[in-house]
Amino acid sequence: MPLTIQHIIDELCGTVPPIANTVDILMAGQPDVEVRGIAVSFMPTYEVVEQAIASGANLLITHEPLSYSHRHEPALVEDDPVFRKKQQLIEDSGIAIFRYHDYCHRKQPDIIMTGLLAALNWESNLAEMLPIAAIVELPSMNVTEIAAYVKQQLGMPFLRLTGNPAALCKRVGILVGYRGGASTAIPFMREHALDLLVVGEGPEWETPEYIRDAAFQGQAKALLTLGHAESEEPGMRALSEELKQLHSELPVEFIPIQPIFQIL
Amino acid sequence: MPLTIQHIIDELCGTVPPIANTVDILMAGQPDVEVRGIAVSFMPTYEVVEQAIASGANLLITHEPLSYSHRHEPALVEDDPVFRKKQQLIEDSGIAIFRYHDYCHRKQPDIIMTGLLAALNWESNLAEMLPIAAIVELPSMNVTEIAAYVKQQLGMPFLRLTGNPAALCKRVGILVGYRGGASTAIPFMREHALDLLVVGEGPEWETPEYIRDAAFQGQAKALLTLGHAESEEPGMRALSEELKQLHSELPVEFIPIQPIFQIL
Repeated sequence: MPLTIQHIIDELCGTVPPIANTVDILMAGQPDVEVRGIAVSFMPTYEVVEQAIASGANLLITHEPLSYSHRHEPALVEDDPVFRKKQQLIEDSGIAIFRYHDYCHRKQPDIIMTGLLAALNWESNLAEMLPIAAIVELPSMNVTEIAAYVKQQLGMPFLRLTGNPAALCKRVGILVGYRGGASTAIPFMREHALDLLVVGEGPEWETPEYIRDAAFQGQAKALLTLGHAESEEPGMRALSEELKQLHSELPVEFIPIQPIFQIL
Repeated sequence: MPLTIQHIIDELCGTVPPIANTVDILMAGQPDVEVRGIAVSFMPTYEVVEQAIASGANLLITHEPLSYSHRHEPALVEDDPVFRKKQQLIEDSGIAIFRYHDYCHRKQPDIIMTGLLAALNWESNLAEMLPIAAIVELPSMNVTEIAAYVKQQLGMPFLRLTGNPAALCKRVGILVGYRGGASTAIPFMREHALDLLVVGEGPEWETPEYIRDAAFQGQAKALLTLGHAESEEPGMRALSEELKQLHSELPVEFIPIQPIFQIL
């Protein structure tokens, strides 16, 4: 029996109860096509789609959407030349693109989190794994040292610091993706007595301003903002490794992206 | 007749029709108190509140909220030691704090936008002023040159670039604050044939990814992300100048803030 795209989707999502109104959809392609090769990436950029096609894959699995919005908004992009060109590339190649987001985060443990912990070599430092966050306990290091270590482990050219760079941090909370906003991050930091938060992204006037106030009041609190992609790409790379194990009969390729911001 | 806090609020908001469910409220203090001095800042950080009190002001006007969330969420902060300490400082001093946000942006022209244009010395380059955006036409410069100019004019240590740094940009669209998201920025860029967007902030997977795709496709498009505060603080400074003119009988002080991120 041929291995279809639907088979891979069922494998990815089948161990989690159905999620209503999920964004995890086949953004392009047909489910009953036989899979010849898989590419995995954090973001289906135009360049990533080109590379996936060039690799011979006919299924691309990404964490984020094609059309620059959490949910596809036809009015936003349907007459847009940039998006039309990407759609044309996808249609001409026939590649299928599946978004693996909600089911990925819902599965416990979430491979986006475990992939980041593995990339940081912090698996043995894990103190508590929560459904949407992890807490690690580190030998006492200051924020500047932790930042340098994180940059090196993740191969990042820069990261963003808020708070006191000299603060000694032992208990570190990790929130991937867009979970850096106040409603999640502030209670998390307070209730778990964390010294440092490591997040993907969040609104600038929320958690960073809380950290600024805490640090100014003399508390040894700090925040490292990695960037959305930087916090979740290691997990998608881990997914590609898992798929390689599961489907040794298939070519599986991971396609990294460049940082979305350059600092000038 | 003494000049009360309510008088200043009416002056700020009175020329705009009432806005339902506005966030522009007296976050601390009483409206019928006589104003002895005004401090203006983008953000009521703990440090800013301290400086406002030290300046002798009994009214602080800020663009953003006290409690790390666009709308005050009691559950988020009421038992929080960082917020409680800020509230205590405010209560002990008796300083009133008014948030000037919705009415400020609704007034046309919006001083947040005109203040930024003035700080950039781009007033004479204004091609079109829209309710929530401005378009300027510059002598043809590349993105790196424009970025260096913006940094210098605004006294910024860094900014974030997406797209091609060598792209020549003539038509530049400006979106302050959190208007950098896809739903506003993508149609704005497309419909006005802009080469460059200059924004405060927005989700990383939205407009930046659109610009990345456009640039990869060979279009001379780019995005400069200044930071939320960096894009709106010049407007609050301009407001303080306006208040000085209107109330020469009162001390009026502008209190700048430091960048919320340090790049490591």
